[in-house]
Amino acid sequence: MIKILVDTVGGDKSPNVNIEGGILALNKIEDIHIIFVGNEEVINQQLISYNYDKQRVSIIDAKEVISCNEIPTVAIRTKKQSTLYKAFEILKESREINCLVSSGSTGAVFAGAVLNLGRIKGIKRPALCPIIPTMNGKLVAICDSGANMNCDALMLSQFGLMASLYMQKTYGVQNPRAALLNVGTEAEKGDELRKEAYKLLSENKNINFVGNMESRDLLSGKYDVVVSDGFSGNVLCKSTEGACLEMSKLIMQLLKNNKEAAVLMQKDVKDLSEFMNYNNYGGAVLLGCTKNIVKAHGSCESVTILHCIEQAYNMEKNALNNAILNCLQTI
Amino acid sequence: MIKILVDTVGGDKSPNVNIEGGILALNKIEDIHIIFVGNEEVINQQLISYNYDKQRVSIIDAKEVISCNEIPTVAIRTKKQSTLYKAFEILKESREINCLVSSGSTGAVFAGAVLNLGRIKGIKRPALCPIIPTMNGKLVAICDSGANMNCDALMLSQFGLMASLYMQKTYGVQNPRAALLNVGTEAEKGDELRKEAYKLLSENKNINFVGNMESRDLLSGKYDVVVSDGFSGNVLCKSTEGACLEMSKLIMQLLKNNKEAAVLMQKDVKDLSEFMNYNNYGGAVLLGCTKNIVKAHGSCESVTILHCIEQAYNMEKNALNNAILNCLQTI
Repeated sequence: MIKILVDTVGGDKSPNVNIEGGILALNKIEDIHIIFVGNEEVINQQLISYNYDKQRVSIIDAKEVISCNEIPTVAIRTKKQSTLYKAFEILKESREINCLVSSGSTGAVFAGAVLNLGRIKGIKRPALCPIIPTMNGKLVAICDSGANMNCDALMLSQFGLMASLYMQKTYGVQNPRAALLNVGTEAEKGDELRKEAYKLLSENKNINFVGNMESRDLLSGKYDVVVSDGFSGNVLCKSTEGACLEMSKLIMQLLKNNKEAAVLMQKDVKDLSEFMNYNNYGGAVLLGCTKNIVKAHGSCESVTILHCIEQAYNMEKNALNNAILNCLQTI
Repeated sequence: MIKILVDTVGGDKSPNVNIEGGILALNKIEDIHIIFVGNEEVINQQLISYNYDKQRVSIIDAKEVISCNEIPTVAIRTKKQSTLYKAFEILKESREINCLVSSGSTGAVFAGAVLNLGRIKGIKRPALCPIIPTMNGKLVAICDSGANMNCDALMLSQFGLMASLYMQKTYGVQNPRAALLNVGTEAEKGDELRKEAYKLLSENKNINFVGNMESRDLLSGKYDVVVSDGFSGNVLCKSTEGACLEMSKLIMQLLKNNKEAAVLMQKDVKDLSEFMNYNNYGGAVLLGCTKNIVKAHGSCESVTILHCIEQAYNMEKNALNNAILNCLQTI
């Protein structure tokens, strides 16, 4: 039985979607046990409306919430009645509870993990790794996308290793193609950091390193993993998201002024929205800690929480962190 | 009379579009003199087909080409018969020729400028500054977008100043809103470089600094200038370009399978393509040198060259470099 902590607060539609997402997961995956963390009364009240296996649900009562406006490192240390504080206490102490799904403050989740959980032995820094759908329907992981502003080459090469194993263990991608985010594709491109990282990535037998990539190729489907420092990875993710959204808005505006075409395009537009809806793809994972942490978007739906739970489940079931540890030891 | 050197080689459709672009500019702007640099015979041959004021055209014979596959710093020093070598010789020696438009190798143009031309007194490093159309029809400038991989805070603040004055002098944008590319909008976000740059930008009275921006807002139209280091600026430009292109491809695919809608959307699609066609917006400028350098995309059209010449013309006519010098002195 894989036990997963589900933080019920912190998102725009919490606790409803968080609880419903937990129930969806319970009814989909047999060997899963959900531990809801949040206001016990509220949770019990909502649970009444669902059919599910009560044996596989527990509740940890926690009445405080850490908001996105608080200083994460302070809040995670001082708000002892908060869902995240309690969740990380459990992760720290329990040997059999190894997964957390939260839609709360990214900063607090990250701070909680770094302050409370150990790193995988040999990993310099944990990294944030979201996934984005590409134009050929496959996913691409971007690691790091914002946890580490200052990186050295070893960190980048470790991000490549962790994200490659993540794509393998969680999505079944065989021999994932990992590329280094750079300003050009030639081997000698970029700053000293990129040149050094290029060398380390090339030499690592546990990484299928395919060379440098330019950011314009992110959605092409040519890569499964993008390796980057947290600053430029963040720029990459958000600019891609922003450009896709602005393009969609433009199309919608055109269709608003062209009612006849809009009727004919109805299904296409729906498919496009579904394709672009990040709720269909789960959350960003924090790689490099001894436990499995999945962070859902603040404006997530219950189906997002379901996918996040599946991510955590696969990471744990396929022993991602052990795989990372083993690959580090073989270098 | 403003004299502008036009490199006739280096782009995919050179020399044809470069020469035609020069003629378009001659026939549009009265006080302009075009100096074509390239194979004299070829240029003369093509010029036969146009009507234009012959008094305002000269030719510098140069038969070599620096390709994109050569090492820029080596090529620009050794290929003495190349168009770029000769163009920079003229820029260096002449007091009355201050503008160059080229669609050749970006590296060679940049190396030529740095090695041959002085920097504006007080400017630490020249920077590459392209413009991108936003969703409200206005342009946004991104500085630096690839010339400087390693930056300090003073460089970033100078990029903000130069690009602000550029938007003002070239496009008539009053009080351009300049933002610092960062991982969040709050003042304390980002690494030490961003925090220091934030301070310098806030304190500079010659910059209308509106704070940090996230890359997802690039196309929103909320900003006229984005300040960034060359690495993340490059990631920003190319990921935005890539995402917009992939989205267009997706729409085209949908319309290909939906012929009835495609007929109804014909005009919309054409407008969208025109809006996204970078040929309509000229080239990237190199800011911070004592001369005005405009770099057109390698796959540019004659109308792109026309716009590039207009950019160079406006920079020179409105004394951009003097304005930069004066603002540096008032700090």
